[in-house]
Amino acid sequence: MVNKINTRCDLMLFGALGDLAQRKLFPALYQLERANLLAEGSRVLAIARSDADTETVRQQLFDKLKQYVKPEEFDAGLAESFLKRVDYQILDFNEPDAFGVLNEWRDDANNELIVYMATPPSMYGVIARNLRAASCCTEKTRVVVEKPIGHDLESSKVINDELGEVYNENQLFRIDHYLGKETVQNLIALRFANNLFASQWDQNHISHVEITVAESVGIEGRWGYFDKAGQIRDMIQNHLLQLLCLIAMDPPSDLSADSIRDEKVKVLKALKRITPDMMDSYVVRGQYTAGTSNGRPVPGYLEEEGANKGSATETFVALKAEIDNWRWSGVPFYIRTGKRLPEKLSQIIIHFKPAPHYIFDPDQKHLANNKLIIRLQPDEGMALKILTKDQGLDKGMRLRQGPLELTFSETFVTDRIPDAYERLLWEVMKGNQYLFVRRDEVEYAWRWVDQVIRNWKDGGEPPKRYAAGTWGPVASIAMITRDGRSWYEDV
Amino acid sequence: MVNKINTRCDLMLFGALGDLAQRKLFPALYQLERANLLAEGSRVLAIARSDADTETVRQQLFDKLKQYVKPEEFDAGLAESFLKRVDYQILDFNEPDAFGVLNEWRDDANNELIVYMATPPSMYGVIARNLRAASCCTEKTRVVVEKPIGHDLESSKVINDELGEVYNENQLFRIDHYLGKETVQNLIALRFANNLFASQWDQNHISHVEITVAESVGIEGRWGYFDKAGQIRDMIQNHLLQLLCLIAMDPPSDLSADSIRDEKVKVLKALKRITPDMMDSYVVRGQYTAGTSNGRPVPGYLEEEGANKGSATETFVALKAEIDNWRWSGVPFYIRTGKRLPEKLSQIIIHFKPAPHYIFDPDQKHLANNKLIIRLQPDEGMALKILTKDQGLDKGMRLRQGPLELTFSETFVTDRIPDAYERLLWEVMKGNQYLFVRRDEVEYAWRWVDQVIRNWKDGGEPPKRYAAGTWGPVASIAMITRDGRSWYEDV
Repeated sequence: MVNKINTRCDLMLFGALGDLAQRKLFPALYQLERANLLAEGSRVLAIARSDADTETVRQQLFDKLKQYVKPEEFDAGLAESFLKRVDYQILDFNEPDAFGVLNEWRDDANNELIVYMATPPSMYGVIARNLRAASCCTEKTRVVVEKPIGHDLESSKVINDELGEVYNENQLFRIDHYLGKETVQNLIALRFANNLFASQWDQNHISHVEITVAESVGIEGRWGYFDKAGQIRDMIQNHLLQLLCLIAMDPPSDLSADSIRDEKVKVLKALKRITPDMMDSYVVRGQYTAGTSNGRPVPGYLEEEGANKGSATETFVALKAEIDNWRWSGVPFYIRTGKRLPEKLSQIIIHFKPAPHYIFDPDQKHLANNKLIIRLQPDEGMALKILTKDQGLDKGMRLRQGPLELTFSETFVTDRIPDAYERLLWEVMKGNQYLFVRRDEVEYAWRWVDQVIRNWKDGGEPPKRYAAGTWGPVASIAMITRDGRSWYEDV
Repeated sequence: MVNKINTRCDLMLFGALGDLAQRKLFPALYQLERANLLAEGSRVLAIARSDADTETVRQQLFDKLKQYVKPEEFDAGLAESFLKRVDYQILDFNEPDAFGVLNEWRDDANNELIVYMATPPSMYGVIARNLRAASCCTEKTRVVVEKPIGHDLESSKVINDELGEVYNENQLFRIDHYLGKETVQNLIALRFANNLFASQWDQNHISHVEITVAESVGIEGRWGYFDKAGQIRDMIQNHLLQLLCLIAMDPPSDLSADSIRDEKVKVLKALKRITPDMMDSYVVRGQYTAGTSNGRPVPGYLEEEGANKGSATETFVALKAEIDNWRWSGVPFYIRTGKRLPEKLSQIIIHFKPAPHYIFDPDQKHLANNKLIIRLQPDEGMALKILTKDQGLDKGMRLRQGPLELTFSETFVTDRIPDAYERLLWEVMKGNQYLFVRRDEVEYAWRWVDQVIRNWKDGGEPPKRYAAGTWGPVASIAMITRDGRSWYEDV
């Protein structure tokens, strides 16, 4: 029962010469070709504003594939035959009359039409309207859009309205590429196929949850863009809240897109509002100063190229999220994400409660809770920390914390782990929306994040400093320490 | 808080030139020496009937150590210095007057006295009485005895009475060497230090339990001895029921010997009596016929050297044990053990119940229960079978059963796993009885096993045949199949 499709797809890719398309989307399409998942007759129309011809674009794409596909997975012949599917179309996105040319490219109206807007969100509305005006779309057309959907609730509504004017919600595939990650999808299998976990997934058995998404890089030359957003908009509103939803959601009654998304929305709606008086104990905002990264000295955020010295934009956020429902009452979700942290590390840690009675050596009592560690980066996999007896002959009944370990890359060596975009493009082709974000998810996430941003603005306090190469402001450690806990460190 | 002792011990070892002493006990003592766990001044008196002097015995023991200790753990200098602790004493165990000589060997009455009876159980009473008569023991003397404690309830009572006449129960250390195995002890840490398991360790969460102790060897030249016992007395009455107790017992309120043994006894008392009318569906008795073992043809049990062709002794038993208490009501424990099975394998498998609702592909529903596999042989360790998402790009939300694996020998490479006898001798020296079997355990185990043996005798049916190199009689497969289950096979 493998999910093959035989459907021919016509993929119109707006912004085809941009960074995302070249670095992620074409390599992902190449991988689908390599896995023999592209139906014969499926085609790609690369659309951009640059004056170029198909041959030149194919050559450029060939070079980029060679650059971005792993050498052992790159096959020049396969790349060439894949690129035969690709045509190039110059287009002024703002010019309604120009869009008619897209219809000419379509040679079989039965091919599923997929429109991928790899453009700034400000273009979504105009592209949608122009496509409609040129009769390029039907009610079956699938439309893929990238984040950010706005910078707050209001602006996201504007974008969603513009898209909603032309498309039904069931046509819209809003990407959060975290949802394409193997380990993230695995959360669904892990939680709902394993009763060992499912039956303990609540406030009776879990004391707290940690989510860390740490980057070691800084701003990477996009200071201006980032400074308008900040870490909470760039990472928490989408990726981290999506992770939180997948961990916290009630079991869906089936795997359909709306069953899953209904449950995720219930979580977002139940997030406890963070009021101004809660800010001191629930939220820490940080901004990195000069320090070191991988042993090299690096500048602070305000010294980066193009920096506005007065910026109060955060490059780090730690917060304590609470979910006001039956499953999670009293179980804090400690979340942190930042740039210029000591390492690239994304992980979720489920801290289970200890047994009601403890009978081993008193000095080891602090060890006595199980932890499930779900790693997204660097090695996708999971580990369950359990306590076993220490083996030394002279150790009596001393405990030792050992991991039951499952590293995907090591355990299932025969299969490569698909990149998130491969999975997501494949799901679009199959018409499955369950890995894509529904309008109400976007909006409830903004509603919750907006109030934190509003509190920051009203409070007027600057972000707390942390040296590049450290785990964020000391206040983020104090936040969790006050609750008698600590950020997990694998030792 | 490592459990060091500084106590000097005087160990009187009866039967010191026998197989057990030479193959297991002296190598274990050597390992304690090697681990620097023998206090200075601790001594061993090797006692046997043979006429020999200490020097000759030391030389013989040196050769045996060289033979039975792993080459990389054998150090000739260390062996020699260890053997300086050993003296030899010829003794007629039946001669009360001879025992006075043992007092002469003792040069410091403050040394803890340990008497180890590595002799046939028929000697326990006479040795005990003669030691008392010669004033060799005090109420502090620790006495170690080996199985079998009798061949049924009545005969075990005789032996226990004989020992009890001279010693209090808190002086008696009855060995079941399975209790010294690392993984077996680990059951206590695993069950009671990990709430993830502790909170699910009952009939609400576990559907059934399997215990398999398979031997690939046959009778190994001891046909006459074995034929009087049979597999149920030789393996189930002691080792397998001990395993069952450790898995099934309620949590003890502390780790003291009697707290643990009280709980084990409760399990033995709650074992559902197997009545004659239950025999067909609860018990399978087998005897191997000619077949193959590791590719070689091997004779059947009745063709082994010294065999009585009419023997109805079982070399295989499979049975379904039920525990009539709140924790285990409705949870069968399927137990099997036999000789000339395809491999040497000892494992316990906890089959957890599936989640109440199943949302993945219907054809994979049979996969959807977690299993905890506790391996005693060949590689001590444990594995938790959990379901994850299959990774192939074209696999959608297909499930895959992956193990979270903890192999002690691989995971904790720095520590060797102590042999059972090292651990047991060490615990005797420390005076810890928790790894030793109390009188009531022995007797309740016999009570339960006796009725099965009685049913066999009354029924008059011969054991079912199975070819050497197979997994026992077909009836043992039918027994579990009738319940809609199967013996676990790792695939």
